[in-house]
Amino acid sequence: MRVSELVRRTGTPLATIKFYLREGLLPAGRATAATQADYTEDHVRRVAVIRALSEVAGLPLAKIREILAVIDEPGEDLFAALGRAVGALPPYRREPADELPRAQAAVERLGMQWDPAYPAAAQLEHALAAAEAAGLPPSGERLDAYGVAIGAIAEYDIAAMPPAAGSAVEYAVLGTALYEPVLLALRRIAHQDRARRLLRDPGAAGNPDG
Amino acid sequence: MRVSELVRRTGTPLATIKFYLREGLLPAGRATAATQADYTEDHVRRVAVIRALSEVAGLPLAKIREILAVIDEPGEDLFAALGRAVGALPPYRREPADELPRAQAAVERLGMQWDPAYPAAAQLEHALAAAEAAGLPPSGERLDAYGVAIGAIAEYDIAAMPPAAGSAVEYAVLGTALYEPVLLALRRIAHQDRARRLLRDPGAAGNPDG
Repeated sequence: MRVSELVRRTGTPLATIKFYLREGLLPAGRATAATQADYTEDHVRRVAVIRALSEVAGLPLAKIREILAVIDEPGEDLFAALGRAVGALPPYRREPADELPRAQAAVERLGMQWDPAYPAAAQLEHALAAAEAAGLPPSGERLDAYGVAIGAIAEYDIAAMPPAAGSAVEYAVLGTALYEPVLLALRRIAHQDRARRLLRDPGAAGNPDG
Repeated sequence: MRVSELVRRTGTPLATIKFYLREGLLPAGRATAATQADYTEDHVRRVAVIRALSEVAGLPLAKIREILAVIDEPGEDLFAALGRAVGALPPYRREPADELPRAQAAVERLGMQWDPAYPAAAQLEHALAAAEAAGLPPSGERLDAYGVAIGAIAEYDIAAMPPAAGSAVEYAVLGTALYEPVLLALRRIAHQDRARRLLRDPGAAGNPDG
């Protein structure tokens, strides 16, 4: 397809597409004339990935480049590739955490295997320390409830991961960046739903038709 | 306690405490002399709440003020107070969504009652539209899996809410702002745990000791 068709298909301004080409985020099309190139479905897909990472997830260009490189060359070890790609997503901690006592205790309690060097480890430690500082450290019971529910979500996510390595990396990155806001919004709406049942319609608790 | 003790107890610099006092976020202590005032446990608690909202959740002062006003005067209708307070948390949408087709369909599928004017409604619509634009709209199966798990989390959260109205509002606001990062970090670690079982130790799948 012509670049005009790529613009139309992706809903992305020509200037943005040219910027992606110039920055090497989007591979050049196959040249068909001195000033014309032919683009494929792979280009359509790649533009969608770049826009999701930059405009929705707010990643800087360097991090997008890092992730695209893993999608393009995941290498032999898919588990390591997934970690590298998802590890390039925000939030970015300024200082790596040397000690992770709260995260360590939580992850052990939930019986999960983890790599403390994985960015999510410091992210969890920081989040738990903040909750503690505000006087709301998680009880063991709360951690267990969250662990079971989040475990079910993660199991669904991993079971639905496509088998081809490049597609798996792309799915993991987009599924993390794009579905985190979905899950948080759903939780807020579920809070409203449950609080309404408790405070407004206590008689209807447990009865979705109530 | 003297202000020096408040500084020590909250780990907050004196300049910051003075700023909170000047801005009216922190009520003045009881004057004990021309230049001295007496502070209570309520002040310790309030400083922790302000810091969690400003430094962890990144709220602007005006929004913190809004939330503190609801904590201090929740009024007769606790359900409405919870909505006002949690609705003052980020993310802040620039434009309110007039139509919420994706969110509407998702919430109906999950059998939840909602108020489309609640900020989380536009947040869900925006998040689902972004996933769709990136070619990853949620399947019904994915929505169902997420809905069950998030529903269990929300039920735990609401069941553990303290009964007194002011405390309930404070709990709802801090539980939302502080536990969203915890849940996201846990999901990333759970992904790593499940991916490791699938890709590295397939024989150990389902066996936490494997």
